[in-house]
Amino acid sequence: MIFLQDACDKIAPLDASWLERAQKRHDQLTKPPRSLGRLEEIAVRLCAIQHTDSPRATPSRIVIFAADHGVAHEGVSAYPPQVTAQMVANFRRGGAAINALSRAAQAQLHVVDVGVEGDEIEVDIEVDADTNANIEYSMLKYSSCRVRNGTRSMTRGAAMTHEEALSAIATGIAQAESTACDNVAVVGIGEMGIGNTTSASALTSLLSGLSPQEVTGRGTGIDDATWKHKIEIIERAIQINDLQPLGEAPTQDRVLDALASVGGLEIAAMCGFCLGAAQSRRAVIVDGFIATCAAALAVRFCPDVKSYLFASHRSTEIGHAALLRIIEQEPLLDLGMRLGEGSGAALCLPILAGAVAVFNEMTTFENAGISGAADISR
Amino acid sequence: MIFLQDACDKIAPLDASWLERAQKRHDQLTKPPRSLGRLEEIAVRLCAIQHTDSPRATPSRIVIFAADHGVAHEGVSAYPPQVTAQMVANFRRGGAAINALSRAAQAQLHVVDVGVEGDEIEVDIEVDADTNANIEYSMLKYSSCRVRNGTRSMTRGAAMTHEEALSAIATGIAQAESTACDNVAVVGIGEMGIGNTTSASALTSLLSGLSPQEVTGRGTGIDDATWKHKIEIIERAIQINDLQPLGEAPTQDRVLDALASVGGLEIAAMCGFCLGAAQSRRAVIVDGFIATCAAALAVRFCPDVKSYLFASHRSTEIGHAALLRIIEQEPLLDLGMRLGEGSGAALCLPILAGAVAVFNEMTTFENAGISGAADISR
Repeated sequence: MIFLQDACDKIAPLDASWLERAQKRHDQLTKPPRSLGRLEEIAVRLCAIQHTDSPRATPSRIVIFAADHGVAHEGVSAYPPQVTAQMVANFRRGGAAINALSRAAQAQLHVVDVGVEGDEIEVDIEVDADTNANIEYSMLKYSSCRVRNGTRSMTRGAAMTHEEALSAIATGIAQAESTACDNVAVVGIGEMGIGNTTSASALTSLLSGLSPQEVTGRGTGIDDATWKHKIEIIERAIQINDLQPLGEAPTQDRVLDALASVGGLEIAAMCGFCLGAAQSRRAVIVDGFIATCAAALAVRFCPDVKSYLFASHRSTEIGHAALLRIIEQEPLLDLGMRLGEGSGAALCLPILAGAVAVFNEMTTFENAGISGAADISR
Repeated sequence: MIFLQDACDKIAPLDASWLERAQKRHDQLTKPPRSLGRLEEIAVRLCAIQHTDSPRATPSRIVIFAADHGVAHEGVSAYPPQVTAQMVANFRRGGAAINALSRAAQAQLHVVDVGVEGDEIEVDIEVDADTNANIEYSMLKYSSCRVRNGTRSMTRGAAMTHEEALSAIATGIAQAESTACDNVAVVGIGEMGIGNTTSASALTSLLSGLSPQEVTGRGTGIDDATWKHKIEIIERAIQINDLQPLGEAPTQDRVLDALASVGGLEIAAMCGFCLGAAQSRRAVIVDGFIATCAAALAVRFCPDVKSYLFASHRSTEIGHAALLRIIEQEPLLDLGMRLGEGSGAALCLPILAGAVAVFNEMTTFENAGISGAADISR
């Protein structure tokens, strides 16, 4: 756990003087002060994150962590477990929603297999006729960094050992460091893993103190009977792993134990990614329910991570709200989405780009010779 | 008024069969059905608007209509009336928020002077040092189509004659026709006009039946005394022009009378733009409070206009909600903005582009060989 403590130690809170300086600049631009609302907050926070007067939102990247869940074999999802590997192949061929959204946002897309079940995923990298030939493969990368082939089922003990969870966290930190090395300004994180709303709901219950029933949703779209079964599975997993609600200031050991017991490899990796990105002063756009669960774990490991996070969209999963309270972020979008894959994060990239364009490119009242609000005489 | 009736007659309701066909295609794509929420609705509606299985969101354009208001000389705004002309010059030099946002969204920007006060606006089209050299001037156009130099004050009779209001509506229809000729797929409309929240609040009161106090906000940021004064001005204008709430199905004459009496030239032009765009089956992204007021007038002229409108963002102006109910659209964004200029519309262009990319570029379950939800066996 030394590397984890080390990562947390390197995360600095935002410097208030950068925030003030950036807001002062914003108030001089040719618009009524604060009239661009959250667009102003975004630019100001990016200045403070990046320690600059000229914030950047490009190049941007979406990183998807994929892994399987032992619990998915217990009928908690509308889809069979092999869909995880099939969707990873789909990402690599360019035919999934996140491929289309990343291309539309001109973002790089990295897919990291951190623990999919079965054989290594091989695909012919060929453009399908109906996935549009307009794909730049230099924008699409794949890495296989499997910690293990899927987790064990949380209903029969811990899904991972502490070492496995730490290894997945380390993979996430390493991916964040590589993102920083590549000079990427803003990263969105997302996931793929059949069964992972079960893991995320279990963790959300422990993080928030709410009951499994209060934080468990329909995932990819399950019926009432499957939903009740999913809640029972989560209750059983929490009991068999002897877990208690974490409260607001848990020890790192307790957070790790919860993550290892009922979490997933992709959740651990995204948690590590948030820590690594904050450590290298990079903004992270957090996708939906599962990604926010990982971000909330990162915040429990190190509260200062919060300032580096942007919540992308309000998921229709009912557990999401409790997690948003933990990371203290309001989502930028509320479009009734519940797909994952980083789809919500990708949709926010142009909003950050717009916020930065306004900050960097607008003229000031003084330079434009425009009368300010102070000139009014009634 | 013959041309107005003619425009309304040419607007067709959406064909339900196009909507069904597009949703059927969406349900075959490699994601849980409906998991992309409003992104799916957008693509499906664009198919029905454009009569196509391959909807487009590009090229896109923002059209800003600028005009002055006689009532602005009565101390209803935080800014003096000359700011309208100064901001039009700023748009033309590329230094305003909408310039930065249009560039970020790779949208064309057209600025139409439909009735600014004073001399014709001349600017040296020179890139200011701090407005960023990265401007493509082919993307920025300006037209002077003044109906008159600002409106009369609504507190001393009608702001415009019916002929003037019709002329501004015709200008908007012509701009929409030119947009269609240029093969633009999606257009956002916005405005500039010191004093125009006063006009829009007066019209919102008449459109909704709510009192001026219930629909009048702080505009560019006025204090309590100015706000009370603004409400009194609106009450006086409604009284002196002998106007009554329009109700849900007013005659075109009554809508025109309200618009001419307390409206503005840019509001009339945006109203015409909505009619013209719907007539040529083009989607319109409606900016904030003022633009939605114009769209609501268009809906009262012709209810079928609704289906061609997308509400961009929820403005902080309190009258906005009543107008959104009239156009029956939920905003895509809620970012605490209140700038106008088409800024909210520009931020929505990438969302529409993402929705279209997903629809056109994603592969189907069948083509990707991915197991569907039906395969589950518990």
